[in-house]
Amino acid sequence: MIAEQAGVDLARVRVVLVETSHPGNIGATARAMKTMGLTRLVLVNPKDYPSNEATARASGADDVLYRAQVVDGLAAALTGCRMVVGVSARRRGIASSELDPRGCVTALARLPAAETALLFGRERSGLSNDELDRCQMVVRIPANPEYSSLNLAAAVQILAYELRLQAGGQSGVEEEQPPAPFEEQERFYQHLQETLLAVGFLNPANPRHLMRRLRRLFNRARPDQREINILRGILSAVQERR
Amino acid sequence: MIAEQAGVDLARVRVVLVETSHPGNIGATARAMKTMGLTRLVLVNPKDYPSNEATARASGADDVLYRAQVVDGLAAALTGCRMVVGVSARRRGIASSELDPRGCVTALARLPAAETALLFGRERSGLSNDELDRCQMVVRIPANPEYSSLNLAAAVQILAYELRLQAGGQSGVEEEQPPAPFEEQERFYQHLQETLLAVGFLNPANPRHLMRRLRRLFNRARPDQREINILRGILSAVQERR
Repeated sequence: MIAEQAGVDLARVRVVLVETSHPGNIGATARAMKTMGLTRLVLVNPKDYPSNEATARASGADDVLYRAQVVDGLAAALTGCRMVVGVSARRRGIASSELDPRGCVTALARLPAAETALLFGRERSGLSNDELDRCQMVVRIPANPEYSSLNLAAAVQILAYELRLQAGGQSGVEEEQPPAPFEEQERFYQHLQETLLAVGFLNPANPRHLMRRLRRLFNRARPDQREINILRGILSAVQERR
Repeated sequence: MIAEQAGVDLARVRVVLVETSHPGNIGATARAMKTMGLTRLVLVNPKDYPSNEATARASGADDVLYRAQVVDGLAAALTGCRMVVGVSARRRGIASSELDPRGCVTALARLPAAETALLFGRERSGLSNDELDRCQMVVRIPANPEYSSLNLAAAVQILAYELRLQAGGQSGVEEEQPPAPFEEQERFYQHLQETLLAVGFLNPANPRHLMRRLRRLFNRARPDQREINILRGILSAVQERR
């Protein structure tokens, strides 16, 4: 299906900051978001928040801060999301496919109705592998290989800027079915792990490595709800036949 | 003439900050520059510099700060420049032609040997009309019309990011593992169909419809050889357990 005026709807994009240490970065993030028209900020276990420093650095974007949601885990931050995008400035060891910010927003424009989270990690250590495994897309911001240490709010600024350009609207972009919600995808992985343990394919002492590889494979495909139902139907059939 | 590999040489771009008030913004600018491979910073009459706050915010980019040139007028900052680009986040009353950052770096790439200055104004009031009159190009960063107050270093970050993309030559996608050869993928689908028939999930009279859906799902993921091996290992485990 070709959408007449596909573009990214900024209202369905949330920015999720994971365990931010410095409140100034939270304020600067709010400002970066608002300059580009993003309004929905979610904070997962911020170290020091609320804080005067956050409010000061937000400048006139304190309304974004004021409405920010503070949650105590990634699952709560991602509820209802169909696209989870992890942002990284460093090249990851894993061989998952990485997009640059422009490639990412072009892909998001093909999913105009999908509730989307942009996930930003800790100032020093970024996102954990476990967190990246929950992302259907990983974005790497091109950077100087000798110094790729982007400030957190600067990384948010770049993604927000690309989103705003894309939100302007590009015609002729092909629409995809929206991926299944995050919770449904997690239930599928849970079901998959149980089934693989039952058939003896997974080492019960160390299921993680293989599960991560399978997550990466399915994250690339971004199954929609019907496909998740089919995959879980297969898993149930395997379990019943045993 | 179409250049074979047009690009911007980052070494011929200087960033000029005019009368910056907050030393933290100078440090953050150095960091933003270095992450994208820019190294030449010129400060015109900074209000408070050098400063510990600038050094702190520069993080590991203190070498850029250390080499920054401090001058007492715009003429000194622009000596030797052939292209002077003024950057603004606000729409100017003046009717000069404005480019967006992408249009700007595309234009700069057509002038590969021209020593270039990117000129950023004061935090509150930007560049004066007199200063803008010295610019051959004016760039306006697209922003929320209701709140276009970009932080100074954030504006530098966006321009530096666009320059880096242009310098590197753009590609939307980072390298992926090559997908498994066609024959291997077909063997997987054959194996999948046999297994689904064996567990009773597939209707033997009409397996095609569901197999097509599964093909579409896996085609989107483009499994590589190792992933095909894992998937077939799972199928073998399911078959053996029956």
